[in-house]
Amino acid sequence: MFSEDLDHPLDHGGGLAAARRLFVDAPEPFIDLSTGINPFSYPLPQLAPDLFARLPDPEAPPALAAIAAQAYGAPSAAHVVPAPGTQILLPLVAALVEPTRAAVVTPTYREHARAAALAGHRVTEIAALDGVREAMLVIVTNPNNPDGRLFDKSELIALSKRLATRGGFLVVDEAFMDVGPPDASLAGEVGRNAIVVLRSFGKFFGLAGIRLGFAFATPSIAARLSAKLGPWAVSAPALAIGAAGLADHAWIEATRERLIAAADRLRAILLSAGIQIVGGTALFQLVRTPLASDLFAHLGRAGIFVRSFPEHPSWLRFGLPGTEEAWARLQIAMAAYADTH
Amino acid sequence: MFSEDLDHPLDHGGGLAAARRLFVDAPEPFIDLSTGINPFSYPLPQLAPDLFARLPDPEAPPALAAIAAQAYGAPSAAHVVPAPGTQILLPLVAALVEPTRAAVVTPTYREHARAAALAGHRVTEIAALDGVREAMLVIVTNPNNPDGRLFDKSELIALSKRLATRGGFLVVDEAFMDVGPPDASLAGEVGRNAIVVLRSFGKFFGLAGIRLGFAFATPSIAARLSAKLGPWAVSAPALAIGAAGLADHAWIEATRERLIAAADRLRAILLSAGIQIVGGTALFQLVRTPLASDLFAHLGRAGIFVRSFPEHPSWLRFGLPGTEEAWARLQIAMAAYADTH
Repeated sequence: MFSEDLDHPLDHGGGLAAARRLFVDAPEPFIDLSTGINPFSYPLPQLAPDLFARLPDPEAPPALAAIAAQAYGAPSAAHVVPAPGTQILLPLVAALVEPTRAAVVTPTYREHARAAALAGHRVTEIAALDGVREAMLVIVTNPNNPDGRLFDKSELIALSKRLATRGGFLVVDEAFMDVGPPDASLAGEVGRNAIVVLRSFGKFFGLAGIRLGFAFATPSIAARLSAKLGPWAVSAPALAIGAAGLADHAWIEATRERLIAAADRLRAILLSAGIQIVGGTALFQLVRTPLASDLFAHLGRAGIFVRSFPEHPSWLRFGLPGTEEAWARLQIAMAAYADTH
Repeated sequence: MFSEDLDHPLDHGGGLAAARRLFVDAPEPFIDLSTGINPFSYPLPQLAPDLFARLPDPEAPPALAAIAAQAYGAPSAAHVVPAPGTQILLPLVAALVEPTRAAVVTPTYREHARAAALAGHRVTEIAALDGVREAMLVIVTNPNNPDGRLFDKSELIALSKRLATRGGFLVVDEAFMDVGPPDASLAGEVGRNAIVVLRSFGKFFGLAGIRLGFAFATPSIAARLSAKLGPWAVSAPALAIGAAGLADHAWIEATRERLIAAADRLRAILLSAGIQIVGGTALFQLVRTPLASDLFAHLGRAGIFVRSFPEHPSWLRFGLPGTEEAWARLQIAMAAYADTH
């Protein structure tokens, strides 16, 4: 059962500034591998001063919704809700059904359980889909963060049909689906099923600072979510950058290949240091070692910040280095670690 | 009683693109006076690419909250909630009490009534504070939009005390308070009263596109609102721009004077065209004329877009021109109108 103090934020790793305070003698620049964000950011288009000065053009969100529907394979623009990041959507989505029981497939991104609890649900953390039982709202991250577990599409659709018979629905967080297997996304299924799909713009496009994400749902649910966000929910620069990025098919295709190659390279470094890889996606790898806190500190002293998990002390998650210098420093640090352990 | 279709957006004037379609032969550039946004935007600081690429630094929101507390006169950073615009806060604030009765002092920004209804309240639109009766939640815009009406501070505090005795509270939207009379703001009162104050960054700083606003409340209510927004609610560029702008006391002071002078100039143009001014703030003027739709069309044909109010067909609201060319075109258009009416 999920029971945090709901008014206090979860710890998401504290950020680079905290890492710098922890490892004061580490070489600079600090290398931040603590997130699952593409380090090869989409090149920013020219942003006219008017985008900052004026209210976002009321025609920009529907235009972006149409581009997003095409890019993510949703049935139409009416099935799309642009939002200032998916995070802010989580309590709104959880509030689409009356507060009853929610189940979150875990371990996963912990904000899901917090958001469902905030919406008044009694939240159960379950290990697999067969633990759903009487829940009205089931939340799955697919592929999962941090372990990369991929759920079977037909199994998720079947679950959503069972939930629909009792007035519930399935939430599928596809934050890391962009580099997933083709056709694994459920964005195309939201028109005929009790499914809400969440997609992150910032992770794959390497632009997490602008806050842009999407919900995909039936047009009536999409309209309810949009009404909760109200007008001008997404900043004008984010609307412009999102429209440019999601229409740039050549960049998207090249970036998928680039990320897959980078993930292979990261796995090779971890494996040659003798570290066990539990799973991952093209944007991060999860490793397990009884010496995780030792490895975390070793890397920190080398100016490399990875993600630790207070509730899973044997895990570490590695994001992708973004420069050759960062790759070299990671390789050297991991080799040195392997030599001494 | 407020009764809109809650899943459909309110009409906020349609934006400049709609105006261009309405007046296809109008000279360009179209002059947008339909908003109450400062046309003399705060100069954008250098925005490092990292602000776009990385998740907002977890230390940036509390740092901005501290700056905002000082700039707006709130008791402390713990009383401040930075948000991606105040609009998105409206339903969250309205949901701070169980759904009962809400009263909105009208005519005002219509999203207040919609947000309270979305939160489940039975919403009454009242003409003045003495119409509050049994409402638990009272929403006042101060100074009011569109008529500039200013509410007495001690009367608002007294009302909040009455609301507090029955577990309710007062929401004061101070979106246009920046150029209001000194000491009229209630931001300093939120620590000891059942008051939530909303402030807009984008209007006074002329940067409405970045989406930044604040709620001020007791630390416990502020924590509840922050929890609903979740981490990374405000974009990293907005956090950086907000911190720079709110600390720039010289710019703030000079801009107040500049806006007051510009509002005087706008009033003089309207008065010399024989138009009756109902009220306003330094950022807009509200006029009343039985020929409002005629004047709206006259200005539209001259490439000047002002705000009309479908529910108040005799009103028009004028924002401030931002360039000498825009001033000249407005003056000529108003003089031509006066000559023919």
